[in-house]
Amino acid sequence: MADLLYLDDLKVGQRFASTGSLTVDEARIKSFAAEFDPQPFHLDDAAARPTLFGGLAASGWHTAAMTMKLVTDGGIPIAGGIIGASGELTWPKPTRPGDVLRVTAEVLEITPSKSRPDRGMITMRIETQNQKDEAVQVFTVKMVVPRRTPAG
Amino acid sequence: MADLLYLDDLKVGQRFASTGSLTVDEARIKSFAAEFDPQPFHLDDAAARPTLFGGLAASGWHTAAMTMKLVTDGGIPIAGGIIGASGELTWPKPTRPGDVLRVTAEVLEITPSKSRPDRGMITMRIETQNQKDEAVQVFTVKMVVPRRTPAG
Repeated sequence: MADLLYLDDLKVGQRFASTGSLTVDEARIKSFAAEFDPQPFHLDDAAARPTLFGGLAASGWHTAAMTMKLVTDGGIPIAGGIIGASGELTWPKPTRPGDVLRVTAEVLEITPSKSRPDRGMITMRIETQNQKDEAVQVFTVKMVVPRRTPAG
Repeated sequence: MADLLYLDDLKVGQRFASTGSLTVDEARIKSFAAEFDPQPFHLDDAAARPTLFGGLAASGWHTAAMTMKLVTDGGIPIAGGIIGASGELTWPKPTRPGDVLRVTAEVLEITPSKSRPDRGMITMRIETQNQKDEAVQVFTVKMVVPRRTPAG
């Protein structure tokens, strides 16, 4: 298990990668959609063909959730956990059944808190890629990170 | 069932609301987290107490997924479905077990496509509120919307 990283340990440009990958299961695409996003293009391949997606595609929220699983599986070992406050989300390509997803991430900005000496915010770009190295999601997120040594 | 709305039918400032509400189930908070976001503050109330969350809180992705369920249940009847291309996401307050969520939305911007006469983009602010009228999520999303009458 990787050592946990505090704000003090991070550098702009520092990169991370998921420790593993996740294969997208067609039945789970459909059951996730049935519970949370029951639109034809997430439920049924034939119904998805004439839509913008051109075939069965995972809900963007399912892609986001699978990304979070890859992130929390040890690829980005931030002390205190992965706690996003806000972010910008794009889905450049659909996530398809059988896709093999992995995550790479880069620290873009580090901002110690002025009011809270025990923490700060970082901006991290978290990209989810499929087996063809295509980005299926990019999440540029502001995260709360604790300091190892409170600012004096 | 509401009439489906095309780009031509939408106006800046137009507002929508979910047709129902969704009560957040504690067991589902934990099972969602176990699958996608297995961090202590989403899995166990005692473990969550000393964290930033101060008690069990749903994964932000679970809040996002529940929001999508409210949105797709008829509150925002966009022709062609609810297809987000990108957006800005914030979680101002945690989602708690027993919270009763509903959604309000407002059209902020309408941009017909220059290259595709059959569609356009809208920007919509989708706010998820709990039973105390507190925002637990705000998603400002660019969505693809088809035109009823292709631009000439």
